[in-house]
Amino acid sequence: MNETTPFHLPAIEPTLDAALAARLQHKIDHKTKPLGALGRLEGLALQLGLVQRTESPELRQPQMVVFAADHGIASEGVSAYPQAVTVQMVGNMLAGGAAINVLARQHGFVLQVVDAGVAAELPDHAQLLKRKIAPGTQNICQAPAMSRGEAQAALAAGMQLMRVLPGNVVAFGEMGIANTSPAALLLARLAGVPINDATGRGTGLDDVQLQRKQAVLARALARHPATQPVDAVAELAALGGFEIAMMAGAMLQAASERRLVLVDGFIAGAAVLVALALAPAVRDYLVFCHCSAEAGHRLLLAHLQARALLELDLRLGEGTGALLAWPLVQSAANVLNEMASFESAGVSRT
Amino acid sequence: MNETTPFHLPAIEPTLDAALAARLQHKIDHKTKPLGALGRLEGLALQLGLVQRTESPELRQPQMVVFAADHGIASEGVSAYPQAVTVQMVGNMLAGGAAINVLARQHGFVLQVVDAGVAAELPDHAQLLKRKIAPGTQNICQAPAMSRGEAQAALAAGMQLMRVLPGNVVAFGEMGIANTSPAALLLARLAGVPINDATGRGTGLDDVQLQRKQAVLARALARHPATQPVDAVAELAALGGFEIAMMAGAMLQAASERRLVLVDGFIAGAAVLVALALAPAVRDYLVFCHCSAEAGHRLLLAHLQARALLELDLRLGEGTGALLAWPLVQSAANVLNEMASFESAGVSRT
Repeated sequence: MNETTPFHLPAIEPTLDAALAARLQHKIDHKTKPLGALGRLEGLALQLGLVQRTESPELRQPQMVVFAADHGIASEGVSAYPQAVTVQMVGNMLAGGAAINVLARQHGFVLQVVDAGVAAELPDHAQLLKRKIAPGTQNICQAPAMSRGEAQAALAAGMQLMRVLPGNVVAFGEMGIANTSPAALLLARLAGVPINDATGRGTGLDDVQLQRKQAVLARALARHPATQPVDAVAELAALGGFEIAMMAGAMLQAASERRLVLVDGFIAGAAVLVALALAPAVRDYLVFCHCSAEAGHRLLLAHLQARALLELDLRLGEGTGALLAWPLVQSAANVLNEMASFESAGVSRT
Repeated sequence: MNETTPFHLPAIEPTLDAALAARLQHKIDHKTKPLGALGRLEGLALQLGLVQRTESPELRQPQMVVFAADHGIASEGVSAYPQAVTVQMVGNMLAGGAAINVLARQHGFVLQVVDAGVAAELPDHAQLLKRKIAPGTQNICQAPAMSRGEAQAALAAGMQLMRVLPGNVVAFGEMGIANTSPAALLLARLAGVPINDATGRGTGLDDVQLQRKQAVLARALARHPATQPVDAVAELAALGGFEIAMMAGAMLQAASERRLVLVDGFIAGAAVLVALALAPAVRDYLVFCHCSAEAGHRLLLAHLQARALLELDLRLGEGTGALLAWPLVQSAANVLNEMASFESAGVSRT
């Protein structure tokens, strides 16, 4: 793909179906429990039914896709870890030793790792999908992170790899040293959050390092004037990362196939901002799984008027927050499908 | 057991072992993640290791015990449901149709239902443990809920049934129309929370019904003068319920056997207040699983300086919040046991 190849956005249908929603709500309200007593599980059950267009949703072959990439802005000292950790952690994931592997095994997810733009050649591995756009982005303080063509190629690659995955649920995670920086920049640009508020401690910066990161990101943001009207692909190219771009593409494709999308933390949230800017209907397919301890994530969720299922002070990424919330999604489906009704159980109503 | 039988409290050891805690923290801190990046899972992993006195905790044969009982105060109109629903819901649980059955199946818990004091004779069933102290409590507005001997008998029955259950994890739930009333009274008395604040909507009271419930409970509380110094068994007898008493006994016994105790919602929280008043060391064995939408629960957790793992607007009881949080406990054990260390994975540290 090059600059002249148009970016093809898949058609995404809003899930709203008032008649089905009414039938689902009736089913939920007749379960043997006080009205509303299962709290947020009830809203999840409704969403699941609407996404799958059924009163009896089934969750099949859940997939976990981790997008990995490097970031030129790492050279500005915005992360507590050296850039080499990206490729080392990809190796750890392929060897089964990372937190996301542990959770994927616990919950029966197939794990795929995607090289979206790691700054090293990676050896072949059955679980590794090689989709490298470039060996890391440019330093956003000095140049656009990537060209528009690269941004389009990354979006398209995310869509393409989604098309061949089985199942009707997908969780997305990421690995990339310094990637809270492009996420913060996209949050500032696409949601209007002040850059200092959008900037957090990432893997563990101290106060002085955080102030430095804020200054670096303010400089980066100023270097790339805002598009008017908003051109999300241009903003992604200027400020983003390859894992964020590919994840956004995969989210769009997953929604177009009516799959449920489990959204992880801050970086995945930045991909959501891009996907929503391109196709607002993607929102109906998203489950916001956790609220990260990374400062910007709470602001991102507030901007989306979203409340995450979990808040456990995680700040790891990889998709860990998404998989920790997964059993709640299963529970929502299970109560909808398996609980007795007042009538079937012979229980009195008020 | 009668009034003259002394209540025998099992010995409960605090779990603190500074040397083991240091080894556990070292193990957690050397996993391939930034320091603290797994948030509350890390604290859970530490607790698990201390409870089981090992750096490699294992969770075996988790048990779910639901205590059911009726409450004389139901005749004051404090619940949106008729008292008959208690026995109907016990039947629903024994038939496998309640929310707690769905979650127990999902998570591989063996479910037992205990008749602690249901106001009806229940048919025999393999999953039903008949430990009825009396067919419901007295109306607390007119008399102590139970005699001191009955309170002691209920505590002892909870301990006894715990002794014969297998496994090293136990979750407790409850079913009992009107049981937010004794829970609110115990919260007011044992934690000093104003009774109007401790009183909530239960299964779904409207504003007028809530005000009526507050007036009823204020009257009930005033009828039973506070013990000074606090005599938890006397307070339990005056204000409690049989499921609360039996659950408190089971919690004490479980802690004495170094089992992990998954604490559900508001009613289970009232049992915790009783158990803590009898043996403060029980605290080390408790995992506060969720914060209920029932108003008093947040105040109860604040009194205990506890933060629940989940907050999903549930207000169902039965143990549902405990089982929804269970996969997080498993995840804590799994990351401790299975994640690679920086050294083993060849990942650079800062």
